[in-house]
Amino acid sequence: MKIKAGIIGATGYAGAELVRILLTHPEAEIAAISSVSFEGKKLSEVYPSYKSLCDLECGNQDEVVEKSDVIFAALPHGLSQELAAQCDKAGKKFIDLGADFRLESEEEYKEWYGCEFLDHELHKRSVYGLPELFREQIKGKSIIANPGCYTTGAPLALAPAIAEGLVSTEGIIVDSKSGVTGAGRKPNQGNHYPELNEGFHAYKVANHRHTPEIEQTLSKLACKSVKITFVPHLLPVNRGILSTCYARLNEGVTMEQLRAAYERFYENEYFIRLLPDGANADIHNIKYSNFCDISLHVDRRTGTFVAISAIDNMVKGAAGQAIQNMNLIFGLDETTGLTIVPPAF
Amino acid sequence: MKIKAGIIGATGYAGAELVRILLTHPEAEIAAISSVSFEGKKLSEVYPSYKSLCDLECGNQDEVVEKSDVIFAALPHGLSQELAAQCDKAGKKFIDLGADFRLESEEEYKEWYGCEFLDHELHKRSVYGLPELFREQIKGKSIIANPGCYTTGAPLALAPAIAEGLVSTEGIIVDSKSGVTGAGRKPNQGNHYPELNEGFHAYKVANHRHTPEIEQTLSKLACKSVKITFVPHLLPVNRGILSTCYARLNEGVTMEQLRAAYERFYENEYFIRLLPDGANADIHNIKYSNFCDISLHVDRRTGTFVAISAIDNMVKGAAGQAIQNMNLIFGLDETTGLTIVPPAF
Amino acid sequence: MKIKAGIIGATGYAGAELVRILLTHPEAEIAAISSVSFEGKKLSEVYPSYKSLCDLECGNQDEVVEKSDVIFAALPHGLSQELAAQCDKAGKKFIDLGADFRLESEEEYKEWYGCEFLDHELHKRSVYGLPELFREQIKGKSIIANPGCYTTGAPLALAPAIAEGLVSTEGIIVDSKSGVTGAGRKPNQGNHYPELNEGFHAYKVANHRHTPEIEQTLSKLACKSVKITFVPHLLPVNRGILSTCYARLNEGVTMEQLRAAYERFYENEYFIRLLPDGANADIHNIKYSNFCDISLHVDRRTGTFVAISAIDNMVKGAAGQAIQNMNLIFGLDETTGLTIVPPAF
Amino acid sequence: MKIKAGIIGATGYAGAELVRILLTHPEAEIAAISSVSFEGKKLSEVYPSYKSLCDLECGNQDEVVEKSDVIFAALPHGLSQELAAQCDKAGKKFIDLGADFRLESEEEYKEWYGCEFLDHELHKRSVYGLPELFREQIKGKSIIANPGCYTTGAPLALAPAIAEGLVSTEGIIVDSKSGVTGAGRKPNQGNHYPELNEGFHAYKVANHRHTPEIEQTLSKLACKSVKITFVPHLLPVNRGILSTCYARLNEGVTMEQLRAAYERFYENEYFIRLLPDGANADIHNIKYSNFCDISLHVDRRTGTFVAISAIDNMVKGAAGQAIQNMNLIFGLDETTGLTIVPPAF
Repeated sequence: MKIKAGIIGATGYAGAELVRILLTHPEAEIAAISSVSFEGKKLSEVYPSYKSLCDLECGNQDEVVEKSDVIFAALPHGLSQELAAQCDKAGKKFIDLGADFRLESEEEYKEWYGCEFLDHELHKRSVYGLPELFREQIKGKSIIANPGCYTTGAPLALAPAIAEGLVSTEGIIVDSKSGVTGAGRKPNQGNHYPELNEGFHAYKVANHRHTPEIEQTLSKLACKSVKITFVPHLLPVNRGILSTCYARLNEGVTMEQLRAAYERFYENEYFIRLLPDGANADIHNIKYSNFCDISLHVDRRTGTFVAISAIDNMVKGAAGQAIQNMNLIFGLDETTGLTIVPPAF
Repeated sequence: MKIKAGIIGATGYAGAELVRILLTHPEAEIAAISSVSFEGKKLSEVYPSYKSLCDLECGNQDEVVEKSDVIFAALPHGLSQELAAQCDKAGKKFIDLGADFRLESEEEYKEWYGCEFLDHELHKRSVYGLPELFREQIKGKSIIANPGCYTTGAPLALAPAIAEGLVSTEGIIVDSKSGVTGAGRKPNQGNHYPELNEGFHAYKVANHRHTPEIEQTLSKLACKSVKITFVPHLLPVNRGILSTCYARLNEGVTMEQLRAAYERFYENEYFIRLLPDGANADIHNIKYSNFCDISLHVDRRTGTFVAISAIDNMVKGAAGQAIQNMNLIFGLDETTGLTIVPPAF
Repeated sequence: MKIKAGIIGATGYAGAELVRILLTHPEAEIAAISSVSFEGKKLSEVYPSYKSLCDLECGNQDEVVEKSDVIFAALPHGLSQELAAQCDKAGKKFIDLGADFRLESEEEYKEWYGCEFLDHELHKRSVYGLPELFREQIKGKSIIANPGCYTTGAPLALAPAIAEGLVSTEGIIVDSKSGVTGAGRKPNQGNHYPELNEGFHAYKVANHRHTPEIEQTLSKLACKSVKITFVPHLLPVNRGILSTCYARLNEGVTMEQLRAAYERFYENEYFIRLLPDGANADIHNIKYSNFCDISLHVDRRTGTFVAISAIDNMVKGAAGQAIQNMNLIFGLDETTGLTIVPPAF
Repeated sequence: MKIKAGIIGATGYAGAELVRILLTHPEAEIAAISSVSFEGKKLSEVYPSYKSLCDLECGNQDEVVEKSDVIFAALPHGLSQELAAQCDKAGKKFIDLGADFRLESEEEYKEWYGCEFLDHELHKRSVYGLPELFREQIKGKSIIANPGCYTTGAPLALAPAIAEGLVSTEGIIVDSKSGVTGAGRKPNQGNHYPELNEGFHAYKVANHRHTPEIEQTLSKLACKSVKITFVPHLLPVNRGILSTCYARLNEGVTMEQLRAAYERFYENEYFIRLLPDGANADIHNIKYSNFCDISLHVDRRTGTFVAISAIDNMVKGAAGQAIQNMNLIFGLDETTGLTIVPPAF
């Protein structure tokens, strides 16, 4: 029997990407989808690329919960908490692609999102779904906070260096560049083709909501509080996030030590591809796949470590990772349905 | 036992795309690959997107022939004839992505390519591999001439109208627009990023080599000689061909008749998606997949029929169709390994 | 004393482009601008590229009329007629970038736009502002209907062949491809970056409103009624329209005759660049300028003439041509302020 | 009498851009151009966008020196030193867009470029042509080392903060993103359209040759040796460099102080546009112009200053700045011929 997967918010980009991947997942099937904006419409009317492949009609949230074993929610922040409770009561697994369960500190959630935790017990039972770093905690859980897009690539780039104490946790800088789909499907002036095309700029400099989430992950790895400077930029491409991460090397640390640490740390990770010396991580090489490519660099002249990661913001940064979490909590091989080959061009 | 597939010319774009699709084909596996320019290199060194997925080393042509049940050749024209003979002698299936076996008339081959047929018997035993139009002839054959990219989309757009005599075979115009990968992997001034980006132009106006090939297919459908005007253009996108095809409606023919003819003609074709009235075929919706989307339009004011097809030039226009042909000649379901979901963005 | 130019609808794309060109026009200055959506805002707040160059505040329509010698109106259709009357009464020149005065036949205007002529006398006194074809009628006029974007490139590509009777006026096909700015500044799903990028499709096939306008121009040149099939497509680039125009050659007409006719016809036209044999018009080469590049091709096999024109839809297809008309009606050299060099990349 | 300008290496991108700007310069004219690869060809054959605007034939180097008052050289490094001597002997001004005269330390030149200074006296008489920082030294000079592209934007972003001691000179990070034209006109695999499009990656991480040049400028401003970590990235756009520069704030420094320092420092600089709080520098807004837009940001949480600059790598980063230097050494208003309006789209 296949896992019955439901998608709430299926017509947003993350929802559409969940559909793309689930359609070829050998152990799961899409049981129901919902959309507030397109209720009653076929998904293939919203996304003609899915014609004849997913002609399911968008229903409502309750139908999805009822028909599914696992519910993926791609909702604006603030709306997932009640839904999580509803799923929990119905004995369903809940994987949240929104932000409601990502931050463990209610204070930080209030500060950055302006909302409160509705049910503290539920939050305690939820887990942050970044499998490469927190696999053991995820297994067997039923409420998963799927990380945000920026918050997957940057921590994966830095994790081994921080976990093994090879770099200073002071003064870390994350300079990220994201494709446009990260801003969602709703048209606005900033994403209007002629104003974005041939352009490039930073946004929300040092005040993007993914900052505390990256810090939470790095702090766990460092076993102490880590603060970073995070500057996201908008790339004129559809997909991909490249995160260029800077950290000061601790005294005497060599490139060989760094590389050895990364190789050890990611030894058994299918989705992490550690690039050889001289190579540069490129979003071109991971598009449409769940891979995270990482390249390592050292600036000997200034004692700076530069780790660069490339992920597809919609796959490893959203839908793919969510399905990786699904595989994990249902006891499947973690790569099931996710062995997508990133096209060469 | 899986089919052992070999690829000659694996480091070109068509070869790389064959690899992408074969890697997830459930009934075939890549037995060997070759490349003149990169012999001795791993494919993943040439295309880092394949790292850990296809780290096969490029060998030579003879090794590929020896190790494979079916050989895909992506070679410059003129080089496939000897190879076909070699494969034939060794009892291997041969699927040619080049031009050597596409034209049935040696005269036309001489005129457009400047080469001769080396072995007439071999040419007679080869078949033109456009399954939607010539499926029955393909079955059981061992030398397949896989169509060129333009020569798939335009005939599929016009076939039912011509086969059923709904339009005039005089004055047909095919205005095609192709993504850049159609021009191959070798860098040149015309494909240099800054000179192509934000540009758009026609090329080889009314003298592109795919002209006689399109005419050959249309002539078979019409059961008489058809000449067309064919103008290809270069689009600043990676993939996709949109062909806007114009033909004069025969007296009294209605849109309803046309639509009915297309529905009948393509009734059982998985890879043909006939779009509803009002929709427009878009290369955005078929990228990375083997689909051919077709939209139908009538200009009542001038009595002109406009059929528009969208294919991925590298999939339905090259590697995907080659694998469709492989499935066909090995007796597999034609869609095996080709149920790729075109991404929504 | 410089000409005082006013712009109504300055925050739309055509308005913004008028500003760009007028800012360096040696004989004109921007006296006032208006915008319904951004009244009270500086233009440079709407378009930060104009910071320190045009920090004028958007006022209302009446202020613009009062302060200006010539009023450029970039308004949705239906709104220009009253404004034209107001300008006329105030003794001001009026150059309309909208559609209200383009069609001479009220019937056609009703059919395609659903509106009526408010003041027939005003319509009679207006003139269609395509200087290369109707220069003499434009001089001294005070109400100019500036052509639409598609309606400049296609007629210029075909004019000499039609005026000199070298091609049939039956069965003409215009297959045009336009950059995205043609669809305006208002964001919508179709122009949302991720859905347009790497895509390409036709739209309003055989029913675009520019059809009767192209026909009107061609009919004047042919001295008889001409009907065409017009299919516009949307290119994933910011600027430019390439129009590939197909017409049947009249018996015995040679390429030499065609070229001679074009050379004669455009002999003194600064903005028309007739390309040599073998070259292909490319939107890359005319961006940001008022040039119209034209390449000529003949398909001997089918007796088809192919003329291809490339213009910048926002310059020769809108703002540049409007300023060319301004120069003309104010007795300036037609190229004043318009000798913009199209960048090489 | 207009200044007679000659361009050596006119068919490269910097050369072509010099032509574009000089063609509308009111006080200069192009006297002669040369090109090794295209000698004997018209420039408009190499760049069809210049047809009818610059149909000059490419001659040789000696002709250019002879016919010109000022020689712009856009040559591979190592080739400018002899040419500078030749120009100097002939009493001509020499503006070098290459690297030979940029570094004052021969040791650094050897380390990063592997070449030696041929004539130390000549090097002493040359000056680094970044007018906003070194205007007084430039005036009256005849050998100008025009800065490299990255080496203009980053120093301009940081200059006031460093000159006024508001940030630490330790640990400065410059994360730059450049359009493709920076890599020149010669096609290669990395700039081949399908492999760059929809991609993004860093290159020459912490070992790009512009590093010592940026350090030289910052060291002068700081009056002490400054080392930086510099990581360039390749953007899939034609033009523009965005440099995101990170520096630790000195104790107690406020945003108000920073802004005041920048306003003072750049008070009379036409080409520097200091953006208001909340705005983000964007390469979209300075394309084709000589402007450098700068936005200022502070990360209070970590005490980090973020200054972001946007320039057109081919204008303020190459040809425009070279002409700004020409204006300066010929005693013209520095903005002559450079009041180009960056298009709104």
